[in-house]
Amino acid sequence: MSKDSLVQIAINAREASNKLQYLTTEDRSFALNRIKAVLEDKKRDIFKANEQDKQNADKLVKAGTLSASLFKRLDLESGDKFATMLQGISDIDRLPDPIGQITYSSKLDEGLELYRVTCPVGVLLVIFEARPEVVVNITALALKSGNAAILKGGKESILTLTALYSAIQSALNDTVIPPNAIQLVETREEIDALLDLDKYIDLVIPRGSNSLVRYIQGRTRIPVLGHADGLCTVYVDKDSDLDKAIRVVVNYPAACNAAETLLIHRSILSSHLLPLVTALQNNNVLLHLDQESLSQLPPSYDTSRIQSCVPKDFDTEFLDLEMAVKVVSDVEEAIQHINSHGSKHTDAIVTENEQIAKRFMQGVDAAGVYWNASTRFADGFRYGFGAEVGVSTNKTHARGPVGLEGLLIYKYKLCGNGHVVSEFGEGKKKYLHEKISVFQDF
Amino acid sequence: MSKDSLVQIAINAREASNKLQYLTTEDRSFALNRIKAVLEDKKRDIFKANEQDKQNADKLVKAGTLSASLFKRLDLESGDKFATMLQGISDIDRLPDPIGQITYSSKLDEGLELYRVTCPVGVLLVIFEARPEVVVNITALALKSGNAAILKGGKESILTLTALYSAIQSALNDTVIPPNAIQLVETREEIDALLDLDKYIDLVIPRGSNSLVRYIQGRTRIPVLGHADGLCTVYVDKDSDLDKAIRVVVNYPAACNAAETLLIHRSILSSHLLPLVTALQNNNVLLHLDQESLSQLPPSYDTSRIQSCVPKDFDTEFLDLEMAVKVVSDVEEAIQHINSHGSKHTDAIVTENEQIAKRFMQGVDAAGVYWNASTRFADGFRYGFGAEVGVSTNKTHARGPVGLEGLLIYKYKLCGNGHVVSEFGEGKKKYLHEKISVFQDF
Repeated sequence: MSKDSLVQIAINAREASNKLQYLTTEDRSFALNRIKAVLEDKKRDIFKANEQDKQNADKLVKAGTLSASLFKRLDLESGDKFATMLQGISDIDRLPDPIGQITYSSKLDEGLELYRVTCPVGVLLVIFEARPEVVVNITALALKSGNAAILKGGKESILTLTALYSAIQSALNDTVIPPNAIQLVETREEIDALLDLDKYIDLVIPRGSNSLVRYIQGRTRIPVLGHADGLCTVYVDKDSDLDKAIRVVVNYPAACNAAETLLIHRSILSSHLLPLVTALQNNNVLLHLDQESLSQLPPSYDTSRIQSCVPKDFDTEFLDLEMAVKVVSDVEEAIQHINSHGSKHTDAIVTENEQIAKRFMQGVDAAGVYWNASTRFADGFRYGFGAEVGVSTNKTHARGPVGLEGLLIYKYKLCGNGHVVSEFGEGKKKYLHEKISVFQDF
Repeated sequence: MSKDSLVQIAINAREASNKLQYLTTEDRSFALNRIKAVLEDKKRDIFKANEQDKQNADKLVKAGTLSASLFKRLDLESGDKFATMLQGISDIDRLPDPIGQITYSSKLDEGLELYRVTCPVGVLLVIFEARPEVVVNITALALKSGNAAILKGGKESILTLTALYSAIQSALNDTVIPPNAIQLVETREEIDALLDLDKYIDLVIPRGSNSLVRYIQGRTRIPVLGHADGLCTVYVDKDSDLDKAIRVVVNYPAACNAAETLLIHRSILSSHLLPLVTALQNNNVLLHLDQESLSQLPPSYDTSRIQSCVPKDFDTEFLDLEMAVKVVSDVEEAIQHINSHGSKHTDAIVTENEQIAKRFMQGVDAAGVYWNASTRFADGFRYGFGAEVGVSTNKTHARGPVGLEGLLIYKYKLCGNGHVVSEFGEGKKKYLHEKISVFQDF
């Protein structure tokens, strides 16, 4: 697509965003329901496209250029995936309207009232990979929160994406929402050009690898809400309960919120290490042990799935059934290790000692700090948000699992009667800054 | 300063930030009071440094390379500037502790409680210009909110800044706060090197021109909280009250929250234009009128301070007593003009028509949308925040006047009893997502 066409896409999105400001809760709800209905109608076409995507991907898997796990994520037909996708639209529709919430108010003077009111961020650029149903999920989240969105999915699912997108466009044509509120682009090159358009695009949401997020952060003036993978850690403290430790540590470490580093207190090596290692081995986790923990294993122990760790293991997101293990001397060393090597996603401590748990939760700089609970709870649905944009590893705007709130900002509305600032000051009127009990409706 | 030394500054700030996480409200309050006391003690030294800065600046003013208004901002001795600076520390100290506030909570399961708790962003890099007292103001805001900060002020006030900084360092030495929590750098080149260090720095806050903010956004992966100048607009609607219009339009347009564009409805030109133009002329405002408004002035009107406008006038932040005037046909055209030309800072409508006011406030994409009130109310103190970092023109994280809240983010604390996600799901436990009435203290 030419540079001019991409600028036009961004302008179209901005113009759609301007129109979205005026929509009512009912307008947006109607659109979500319409999208759901049209997707249901077009299920056959969508499955046909998905079938074709899978056939193409299958060749790549056989040629060894596409992973089996990615192939699996492409699939929209198996199990209840399609139904779950549709249900997701209804779930988002049922959430309270996030727009127009008053989050601060102050009476500045007689007849001068200030309100801080939530509103959409504006135009989103969302980049995601593999799973085609994300286009529907993000469309529902964007429209519910009054945002326009430009979407880019993975190239392996392009036919499915196009079929889903075409259904969304057809549905929007039956509503007051301008169809340009949701637009699809197809290539990485198009993203690069869009990243220059900070005049029209307000927020970039890349969902993918750390390298993708860093690449985008380095390429644009637009704020980036990074959803990178997570390097999560569990620290098993000297005062930990062994059973809880095993439960929390063994957590299928292949998801982004799964722990990939195990820190264990030196003083409990003899009691806790072997049961933990054995539990992990029984779950097919390949282990990277540091020298000290390795030396604690009995000589007869089967080490076919155990390696001696190297420093980079503690900075690697294995994204597979792998875990690095390190012995630490206390909670301070654990905190320091996490703050140096973690990805500020989610980290857990297992301990019965409240003081140490508090210390850990205060000192660890991460979106989630957990005490005796699995890091895999880091998820918008599990947190009770009803829907999620992803898990943000940002330190500003929105952190951790991000629900609709992350797609909102606010504006200050001030309503006066010809008030000017020169009326206030020494020897003149004073600002009241009083609580407003009955909100005006504007 | 060498690149290595700058990396060390960033590492020092990160380490200080890690320690700041454990401080109590009292620790931080004690530090603010200590800083205030030492500044008071060292007033003589600080004034001596300021005297020298002013002598140096005076030469530049005489040589025509420094503006008189910038010279004025350098001055810390005149009037009650120094006392006001100290009072600002006490004002910030008196604000409620913003850290540790629970902003969301949910009982996920028996014994599994989730809390979203406010915490510091971490390490700030703040770039400001001219007024040296900002170093004290930002120090107080950063410490109150538990952040470490690296500060860079204007080079014209370097001696004053150094004297203020030395007092702050001396004060911090008497507290539990690591002196590296606040560090000063001196040159633009140092900033460039620091902008690469997203591993250690969490947020850049540039306070200055649009070009400074854009330069920084284009140079770094670190999130930027832009505090650019504002291009604010007042739209005088057909249903406006003339007296209110004059009050709101005439607002000393030399501050960043002053209006620099006047839009006026075509149907009230004959009644409103001349009084508005005359009021502005009486306040020494140089006007840039579009053809239509120009043609409405009586032939005998003194146009010595009136120019015919050119298109770029509507994209220019005059930062002086200047205003561009344009005739529009309705509120829609006014909204469109503002969304295309404004800087999303603050825009006002003057009208007695509630429907039109609502339309304007919904449609205009700006941090502040005002109805019958001067745009100059856009200010943290006037809003009742007690202190302000500046006025953000961002669309994410913090928008408009930013108080302590803009320096905070949150972490999710989850407290369980060995809970794992595989216990939940179809045929297993269900998430409760219940309200927590009695908060745990951790």
